[in-house]
Amino acid sequence: MNKIEHIGIAVKNLDVSNGIYERLLGVSSYKQEEVESEGVKTSFFQSGPNKIELLEAIREDSPIAKFIEKRGEGIHHIAFDVEDIVVEMERLRGEGFILLNEKPKKGADNKWVAFLHPKETNGVLIELCQDVK
Amino acid sequence: MNKIEHIGIAVKNLDVSNGIYERLLGVSSYKQEEVESEGVKTSFFQSGPNKIELLEAIREDSPIAKFIEKRGEGIHHIAFDVEDIVVEMERLRGEGFILLNEKPKKGADNKWVAFLHPKETNGVLIELCQDVK
Repeated sequence: MNKIEHIGIAVKNLDVSNGIYERLLGVSSYKQEEVESEGVKTSFFQSGPNKIELLEAIREDSPIAKFIEKRGEGIHHIAFDVEDIVVEMERLRGEGFILLNEKPKKGADNKWVAFLHPKETNGVLIELCQDVK
Repeated sequence: MNKIEHIGIAVKNLDVSNGIYERLLGVSSYKQEEVESEGVKTSFFQSGPNKIELLEAIREDSPIAKFIEKRGEGIHHIAFDVEDIVVEMERLRGEGFILLNEKPKKGADNKWVAFLHPKETNGVLIELCQDVK
């Protein structure tokens, strides 16, 4: 785990929230990207070595739509940057954590990603991510 | 906003969660500290340039006790490192954000801290923090 790569925040309206986080962070969103497989539109902001990812659902069955319905807008996940996602997934399985993905999958921002089950991590949804080379 | 300084995670039992986050992050907690004014015990883990702060309530009226009662364990706040907290508070007030503190107060880990009202930031509790010099 090299660092916090990003924090994912579930929002209802990406345009409105882009304005809020621009004013908050004092920088503009550097990328907006749809991830069809997850049913989300995303927007990224840089904060030094870290990023903030805003997520809006584009379908009712998107995990983000379900999250907002249940808990309202707010922090959805923490993503950690890892050197080798396959090695890290193996290490974490060995430590007793439950991986929600059998293998890494393609995520936003040109990353391989995998998620850990939040019941083993104090209710925190944790994502591992590695740059696609 | 220089970077994400830390992520605060509300937990029921600090000893149990220290074990979980040691296995997750592959490092030990480098500091445990009680913040009497906030009614919490804290534990810090380094992750590259960032930290994870675990928080356990030590009183029933602690914000962490109330948070867990309402939402269960999970991510409580994001803290951003700032160069000059007074200047940053002034800038954010000017941008229309609501500060929960009139002036910076002394937080854990030798920091001056101030919080923003989550209703203006998509349900995310945001902390500003600056090293005490």
